[in-house]
Amino acid sequence: MKFGIVGAGRIGRVHAQSIQQAISGSSVVAITDVIKKSAETAAAEFGIPKVYDSYEDLVKDPEVDAVLVCSSTDTHATVAIAAANAKKHVFCEKPVDLSVEKILAVKEAVNKNGVKLQVGFNRRFDHNFSRIKELSDSGELGKIEMIKITSRDPAPPPIEYVKVSGGIFTDMTIHDFDMACFQAGCPVTEVYAKGAVLVDKAIGEAGDIDTALITLTFENGVIGLIDNSRRAAYGYDQRLEVFGSKGAAVAENDKPTTVTVLTEKTVSSDKPLYFFLERYMKSFTDEIKAFIDSVENNKPTLVDIDDGLRPILIAQAAKKSLDENRPVKVEKF
Amino acid sequence: MKFGIVGAGRIGRVHAQSIQQAISGSSVVAITDVIKKSAETAAAEFGIPKVYDSYEDLVKDPEVDAVLVCSSTDTHATVAIAAANAKKHVFCEKPVDLSVEKILAVKEAVNKNGVKLQVGFNRRFDHNFSRIKELSDSGELGKIEMIKITSRDPAPPPIEYVKVSGGIFTDMTIHDFDMACFQAGCPVTEVYAKGAVLVDKAIGEAGDIDTALITLTFENGVIGLIDNSRRAAYGYDQRLEVFGSKGAAVAENDKPTTVTVLTEKTVSSDKPLYFFLERYMKSFTDEIKAFIDSVENNKPTLVDIDDGLRPILIAQAAKKSLDENRPVKVEKF
Amino acid sequence: MKFGIVGAGRIGRVHAQSIQQAISGSSVVAITDVIKKSAETAAAEFGIPKVYDSYEDLVKDPEVDAVLVCSSTDTHATVAIAAANAKKHVFCEKPVDLSVEKILAVKEAVNKNGVKLQVGFNRRFDHNFSRIKELSDSGELGKIEMIKITSRDPAPPPIEYVKVSGGIFTDMTIHDFDMACFQAGCPVTEVYAKGAVLVDKAIGEAGDIDTALITLTFENGVIGLIDNSRRAAYGYDQRLEVFGSKGAAVAENDKPTTVTVLTEKTVSSDKPLYFFLERYMKSFTDEIKAFIDSVENNKPTLVDIDDGLRPILIAQAAKKSLDENRPVKVEKF
Amino acid sequence: MKFGIVGAGRIGRVHAQSIQQAISGSSVVAITDVIKKSAETAAAEFGIPKVYDSYEDLVKDPEVDAVLVCSSTDTHATVAIAAANAKKHVFCEKPVDLSVEKILAVKEAVNKNGVKLQVGFNRRFDHNFSRIKELSDSGELGKIEMIKITSRDPAPPPIEYVKVSGGIFTDMTIHDFDMACFQAGCPVTEVYAKGAVLVDKAIGEAGDIDTALITLTFENGVIGLIDNSRRAAYGYDQRLEVFGSKGAAVAENDKPTTVTVLTEKTVSSDKPLYFFLERYMKSFTDEIKAFIDSVENNKPTLVDIDDGLRPILIAQAAKKSLDENRPVKVEKF
Repeated sequence: MKFGIVGAGRIGRVHAQSIQQAISGSSVVAITDVIKKSAETAAAEFGIPKVYDSYEDLVKDPEVDAVLVCSSTDTHATVAIAAANAKKHVFCEKPVDLSVEKILAVKEAVNKNGVKLQVGFNRRFDHNFSRIKELSDSGELGKIEMIKITSRDPAPPPIEYVKVSGGIFTDMTIHDFDMACFQAGCPVTEVYAKGAVLVDKAIGEAGDIDTALITLTFENGVIGLIDNSRRAAYGYDQRLEVFGSKGAAVAENDKPTTVTVLTEKTVSSDKPLYFFLERYMKSFTDEIKAFIDSVENNKPTLVDIDDGLRPILIAQAAKKSLDENRPVKVEKF
Repeated sequence: MKFGIVGAGRIGRVHAQSIQQAISGSSVVAITDVIKKSAETAAAEFGIPKVYDSYEDLVKDPEVDAVLVCSSTDTHATVAIAAANAKKHVFCEKPVDLSVEKILAVKEAVNKNGVKLQVGFNRRFDHNFSRIKELSDSGELGKIEMIKITSRDPAPPPIEYVKVSGGIFTDMTIHDFDMACFQAGCPVTEVYAKGAVLVDKAIGEAGDIDTALITLTFENGVIGLIDNSRRAAYGYDQRLEVFGSKGAAVAENDKPTTVTVLTEKTVSSDKPLYFFLERYMKSFTDEIKAFIDSVENNKPTLVDIDDGLRPILIAQAAKKSLDENRPVKVEKF
Repeated sequence: MKFGIVGAGRIGRVHAQSIQQAISGSSVVAITDVIKKSAETAAAEFGIPKVYDSYEDLVKDPEVDAVLVCSSTDTHATVAIAAANAKKHVFCEKPVDLSVEKILAVKEAVNKNGVKLQVGFNRRFDHNFSRIKELSDSGELGKIEMIKITSRDPAPPPIEYVKVSGGIFTDMTIHDFDMACFQAGCPVTEVYAKGAVLVDKAIGEAGDIDTALITLTFENGVIGLIDNSRRAAYGYDQRLEVFGSKGAAVAENDKPTTVTVLTEKTVSSDKPLYFFLERYMKSFTDEIKAFIDSVENNKPTLVDIDDGLRPILIAQAAKKSLDENRPVKVEKF
Repeated sequence: MKFGIVGAGRIGRVHAQSIQQAISGSSVVAITDVIKKSAETAAAEFGIPKVYDSYEDLVKDPEVDAVLVCSSTDTHATVAIAAANAKKHVFCEKPVDLSVEKILAVKEAVNKNGVKLQVGFNRRFDHNFSRIKELSDSGELGKIEMIKITSRDPAPPPIEYVKVSGGIFTDMTIHDFDMACFQAGCPVTEVYAKGAVLVDKAIGEAGDIDTALITLTFENGVIGLIDNSRRAAYGYDQRLEVFGSKGAAVAENDKPTTVTVLTEKTVSSDKPLYFFLERYMKSFTDEIKAFIDSVENNKPTLVDIDDGLRPILIAQAAKKSLDENRPVKVEKF
């Protein structure tokens, strides 16, 4: 399969590297970026033959089978629709958009053109979390009753980024909302969000929060909890617990080594892998492999456009819940 | 120090055993129970010389320095007040009472008579949880930002008990409310409780819930979470996580052995210690030792009558929150 | 059952405390020590009614059912024989003696008088190690193939003690030789000992070693390994691994708490329990309970006089192996 | 850097994949194999442009900077010498040869031609074991006193392979001998090997053993232990413990996920990664990166020809020790 990449920033480069180096039988044949220099640098580094001036040109390239949408969030929908209209399959980074209308427009374009679309919720492909999903699906845990997600970044992003990020729920928790839906296999109907500014006052002054506890109610009666912080002194904290009638499954953090050091003072071991590039690198490759499998074998993608819409609706409800300090129903679609 | 025990049920016997066998320099000299046979059996088993017909007689015994109130919850306040009026120090099992007025009446009696009172929130003395409190107090974790408590019983109590228990918040979560206050070192100002009946429909028919996620807001800005279930297939689940600006501390479950078994099928280890008698036995002894220290050295008790009141007020707010599905302020006192 | 204790040193006091406080239905009725003051102190502390001037007097006391031999090693055999001849059951601390002849003399006295004798190899009763023995016996590990014992003291004993200790193999490794026999369920036929002086030169100057690797060959083909050190900076290191055709079992160290602390610098947890009194306290109680059970129900003791002899023969072979740097056969009996 | 690979079997393919996919800036330009079809298949799969009929042709290719010797063990020395004489750098799989003379001949050829040679002891580059080496070198563990290596294969190789393998010490333990030297930073002077046939009688009938305990004495006084088995029901067991005067470091097995499953029956987690391809894949890449660094920056290789010789001398001493049941000095060179 031949890919064209729109957006040569961090995540675009991650996908370029995965496809060129870790996925045999596929390759990236074209790339573009609003900063052409970035596209050219990536093309040189990862051996991508064509650099286009615009996404409009790239999506027309007959050699391109699928477009990876890795541009800035506000352009995802536009590029995805253009790609679909050019009859290209689409792999779209998350969030698809912050607006429900635009996401539905992407859905319409994808359906009309009969192409596949997968949303980049890579954590579903993480070895630990997908193992727990398998355990749940196998029935080994019985009927699922509660889901708890711990998701803490090692350090907050620059305050300039925070100001334009759309808020913690769409910027950071969006992944956890998707994980909750994935693990529950069921939509969230209500959300209660408790937030605080405990890490950095500047985040509060920018109208956002940096610490959150979010209670989720699922359609099937399961209840769930997400705890977020923009700062964990010990590194990236990404854990999951699923409790069922017959048992529970717990995923701990990954660590660089298994070494324990015992001295007169203490017994110590490694901190968790530092951040998402370290922790989730393999999942970035695995999500692309799954996308290729869906396209080549004409199967539904594992993270479809509705999966892209759900976390946005939850995030909107969470924001309203935080603002009004009350549980809020998640909009249906 | 010489103790008289009112109530020869399970917890009364735990204290009798602790004092007679594990605490040198103190002894139980008298016991009473509404079922006299129970008191006689315990007296014979633990070498307690005197068995009284009533608590009124026991509290008058001049040999008794302190009264352990281990009778049924609805009699705690009455016995505690009688003991205080007889100038005996009081160790009162939790909850002191379900009524705020009665707890305040106990407080008045204790203050008026100048005796010590300690409430039986034994988990504060647990080796794991007290270690985390020490870490917080030492400043090693920085400014505390979030507290998460997991508290799951291995199996629900008999449905007949559930019907008269006063509900999960005062029966089970009461310990966790106290732990939250203890770890935060600060009162809870608001609570949001989400509950479900997922373990046993009969519990729901009895007007109670069996699964809960409770969000706590503390006066100092810390936020907290308690998750409860009346049933954990793998046994008693008692864990704690405290997150601060400089780091986090996590207490895992205790296990009977450290043995791991590796076979072709799996790598397995022990389940957690089964229930509170196994897990918390040492803390029952340690709370009594602390009480003796407070009395003998005229120091404030480590769990005073206000500590007995706070969880009741939180439980009341939690019940209201559950009923009305909204966050509820905790009453001040 | 009523016990008399000969020797009021550290281990005599451990047993006194166990029996008086943790074992209901039994008590210590008499104690003696070559330093009478020690016996009196222990008697006062643990509520032992009678203090004798000599072990000869104590063993004659008709109230005494069993004698705990806790005196210095060179007197164990003499006291044990006197007790047996007085028709008392005998619990004898290890090693029974360093001389094979004396151990056989104890055996003869015990058999002639029809009394029970148990040797104080308490580690067989340790929760972790006894669990592994149960696993082996259950067949879950298949046919046992290899046994590995790690046994490291936190710090070497005073050099004056080392000089009279009889050497590391009879003083320290003796426990590990017994554990090896216990876990294998089979005698050791050959031993190869590699030693070094790496902790303290003074130990070498005293004619002893402080670090050892000992290879054991068992009659049934199993092979085993003991590693010893007189010093572990991180505390008492007591671990066991048993490998079989169907799997393996591994016992890790016990720790005071399950708390993990995560900071910017490191992830740390507790060091192992400091030394044998902390780590093995429960096993001291459990071995006495087993002894009482053997006497009261007329069952063979779980650690009999032959079990007391075997490690001495292995230790002798180990010493010869070390001196001659070659594998040495263990003497049969 | 441009590589030619001699030998398109399992390990040749591992290196081809590493270089083509995971190491940017280097590539494999030629391959050969005694079974030409194998070379052609690998060339097609990994995009290697040239397939040669013989190693003699390959080493003459002016485009080739370095030769990876991945052919059968008995041809390593011949190919390595030919490559060196053609002024190519050499990466030689282990063992370089079973004969000391041939290894010295390779050394001479390498020195004479001024090329670099690295031996394929990939485990030195394993994340866990290299971390422990760093800890030792940093002084954090104090003066090293003991090294313990556990190395157990999941299942024995086919008996036909065992018959021609040269015995467990050169086939399997060779890696552990190298690891021991690497961790100690010092040659082994004496070895005592205890072996047994416990896994499969056929292995014994082939003149080999399948279970071993090997005691090592190092020149600097450190003592060490390797335990081997050809079969571990639970999978590949690769652990290391290093004890020093100030502390110890322990490397546990790697596992596919961090997931723990808790049910009514048990608490279970993953088995270790299955075998060397799973466990050591990253180290295969990292050793080639180190080789490239040595060549490009003209630094000594991290595993030189002497490092290839040492384990052979230890293996020879181990075999003699096993045959004669006595400790044997390792030949100096």
